[in-house]
Amino acid sequence: MRFQLSLRRLNAVFSAGTVRGTASSAAMRLVQFCHRGGEGGVRVGVEQAEGQGVIDLKAFDPSMPSTMRQFLEMGQEGMDCAKRALSSGQHMVAWSDIRLLSPVTGPEKVVCVGMNYKDHCLEQNAPIPEEPIIFSKFPSSITGPSDDILLPEESQEVDWEVELAFVIGRKGKHIKEDEALSYVAGFTVANDVSARDWQMKRNGKQWLLGKTFDTFCPLGPALVSTAALKDVHNLGIRCLVNGATVQDSNTNQMIFRTEKLIAWVSQFVTLCPGDVFLTGTPPGVGVFRNPPVYLKRGDVVECQIDEIGSIRNTVM
Amino acid sequence: MRFQLSLRRLNAVFSAGTVRGTASSAAMRLVQFCHRGGEGGVRVGVEQAEGQGVIDLKAFDPSMPSTMRQFLEMGQEGMDCAKRALSSGQHMVAWSDIRLLSPVTGPEKVVCVGMNYKDHCLEQNAPIPEEPIIFSKFPSSITGPSDDILLPEESQEVDWEVELAFVIGRKGKHIKEDEALSYVAGFTVANDVSARDWQMKRNGKQWLLGKTFDTFCPLGPALVSTAALKDVHNLGIRCLVNGATVQDSNTNQMIFRTEKLIAWVSQFVTLCPGDVFLTGTPPGVGVFRNPPVYLKRGDVVECQIDEIGSIRNTVM
Repeated sequence: MRFQLSLRRLNAVFSAGTVRGTASSAAMRLVQFCHRGGEGGVRVGVEQAEGQGVIDLKAFDPSMPSTMRQFLEMGQEGMDCAKRALSSGQHMVAWSDIRLLSPVTGPEKVVCVGMNYKDHCLEQNAPIPEEPIIFSKFPSSITGPSDDILLPEESQEVDWEVELAFVIGRKGKHIKEDEALSYVAGFTVANDVSARDWQMKRNGKQWLLGKTFDTFCPLGPALVSTAALKDVHNLGIRCLVNGATVQDSNTNQMIFRTEKLIAWVSQFVTLCPGDVFLTGTPPGVGVFRNPPVYLKRGDVVECQIDEIGSIRNTVM
Repeated sequence: MRFQLSLRRLNAVFSAGTVRGTASSAAMRLVQFCHRGGEGGVRVGVEQAEGQGVIDLKAFDPSMPSTMRQFLEMGQEGMDCAKRALSSGQHMVAWSDIRLLSPVTGPEKVVCVGMNYKDHCLEQNAPIPEEPIIFSKFPSSITGPSDDILLPEESQEVDWEVELAFVIGRKGKHIKEDEALSYVAGFTVANDVSARDWQMKRNGKQWLLGKTFDTFCPLGPALVSTAALKDVHNLGIRCLVNGATVQDSNTNQMIFRTEKLIAWVSQFVTLCPGDVFLTGTPPGVGVFRNPPVYLKRGDVVECQIDEIGSIRNTVM
């Protein structure tokens, strides 16, 4: 039950009475799901504490949108509704009756950061970067927290990368570091699946193609607001392949943290609600093992971050 | 009037009576626009022949969507409606009453191709690639055919690149070369504006950041279907800076053509309606001049492709 938000913690935040003004100022775990059986399509939900289930926001208030991106675009109005829904305890759906989707689908951007853990630089004999290294995946690579990773015939070197991810909650450009966290709707877990042959040896060494095969961005299970986490930059982060721990680190090892990454990237582009950031992976990836290890059909990859949750994807 | 579709050519295509089944089988110039004054927001339009104006699709049929991406997602039904609208000659808006937008906004992907003209490889002493080199811009970089290019303070080396662009009309994966053109909704003109300092010297030599500043992807003026072009791979392509020709080539110099690029990229990702491809630039960019030349405030950059049209953007 390590990943469950405690009711005590939720109540503490709500009773403080100061939960407004920023996207992430309330303790909240938001999800996208569909009802088993499929009726109603994509829905935005709020997790009930203690694993009781998920409140269907659109059932609580039919004026609420169906997708997380649209929900985040509503800003404070959407968040206020989600808080009322959580307080009401109504329109709850049991976990067994839903299929969890990635907490965001179809964002404008999936921004990725390379070489952002010191030890991961050391394991590949690369210098520790002085500036963030930014690349991207296409949004079509996003897949759900329990969906299959499809091994493409075009690659023989598909690797895992557990990463802390976050999602932008409001529009901004040239955002200052000390205001950056107020632009975050929440944090989640990502697997930055990577075809090393295409990333490192082909495509003119531009990383995009090796990073962006369909299903190469499992994401989930929930969008966890900053207020629901003790300290997002001090969380255990692990990857397990077939139950064996292959990556085991802490987000306190990140070179460039959330605030810096938002400030940096927003120099170049306007960030908007739904934009996803993947913040880099700790050491332990397959390509730098001796001999290298790559994913094969049937492997189960689990990515975990304390207090946020875990995603578990089978390679097919 | 070089860029106007002749009525004779349009009639020839329609009277053939076989215009169905593929996104680009009818001679058509599609645009996105808004009415001056702003009422009604974004609209999809069909250009009347001979420069008479644009038919407002949503005025012709209120069930039509407002954006090109949504329109393309409708597939043949949308195209059939556009053909009926064009035949009707009703709901026409004069050019003077509209502001032309980029023909697509908010696509899932902006796929870019590097080093795709032989002479452009030679001007930088680079080998001619044996496979397409694929990188990307974020969709937030797209701007309209007459909009300003915003010179960022973060770069001192902003350069022009005229490119043939195309837009995907229907969903596909592992598309065969001989079927690829049926996935194209139309062709348009792009300027792949590039901050050379960020592209070539920083960000771990990943090109993304240098390519994706806001407004670094002027696009337009129209989405021109394959049937409206004599031969898309034999069109004059030019860039003029302050009226002086700086790039002057022909799309017959492309190393990897439309069909090959679609087949190549769809090995990696599912293509979907609205996805934009920029197919690479001919020689004559500023960075490889001696001494190098970069854009400065007040410069006017015009990118032209015969039979498709031209975009004209002021650097601000």
